[in-house]
Amino acid sequence: METPDFSVRPIGVVRSSLRDIRDAPNQAFEGAPEAVLEIDPAFAPALHRVTAGEDLILLTWLHRADRDVLQTHPRGDATIPLTGVFATRSAQRPNPIGLHRVTITAIEGPTRLRVRALEAIDGTPIVDLKAVMPESRDE
Amino acid sequence: METPDFSVRPIGVVRSSLRDIRDAPNQAFEGAPEAVLEIDPAFAPALHRVTAGEDLILLTWLHRADRDVLQTHPRGDATIPLTGVFATRSAQRPNPIGLHRVTITAIEGPTRLRVRALEAIDGTPIVDLKAVMPESRDE
Repeated sequence: METPDFSVRPIGVVRSSLRDIRDAPNQAFEGAPEAVLEIDPAFAPALHRVTAGEDLILLTWLHRADRDVLQTHPRGDATIPLTGVFATRSAQRPNPIGLHRVTITAIEGPTRLRVRALEAIDGTPIVDLKAVMPESRDE
Repeated sequence: METPDFSVRPIGVVRSSLRDIRDAPNQAFEGAPEAVLEIDPAFAPALHRVTAGEDLILLTWLHRADRDVLQTHPRGDATIPLTGVFATRSAQRPNPIGLHRVTITAIEGPTRLRVRALEAIDGTPIVDLKAVMPESRDE
């Protein structure tokens, strides 16, 4: 297709005790530690009215992913048939955007948000934050 | 911050009767029409085991968005105080990635998926598809 590529500019970075993707759980509810979202100060105005206690949708760029993988055994389980990555949550995919629902537990500075249970490793680039829409199907 | 930019390669495009962002509802449940996800044939293997009837998470690139907007009146309602875009679902944001939950109503070819109720306009680039994880908090 003739669609051009787009450039994603990271807006911040994940700070976490998770240092290695081999230690990271597949999903946050599988024992992930808390983490800090360190946002670039240039984007401080975009955090106005973000408050502790609320949930947000976090999009990351899974920079360690292999973008050439199109099929995978879900959860690395060889007994599950090969599946197209668009039918899975594998990090390996053409555009490795991670999708995480996070709970903000504390605002630690103008651009530092502490969150509960995040499965992304230290240094993972952050590309977006969005409001959750509990009343809709759209998340 | 020193994090480099990343390049998003569109994996397909939205085909819709919605031609103008002024006609598009804010959210799918607000009367959006059905649409077709036309995936680049190069990514056909990544659709293996995607089936009609299931829901997927669709990520788009909102190519008409203004990436310099950091604060907005939610829903364009001037009576709502200015809010940082990271606390909203505004399309205007530094990395204008659209997040949509879609229901696949038909598989119309190896790389054509018909979906119910999508608020993205015709020509919107598609950047990812993911499984929904109803048992988790992670979507």
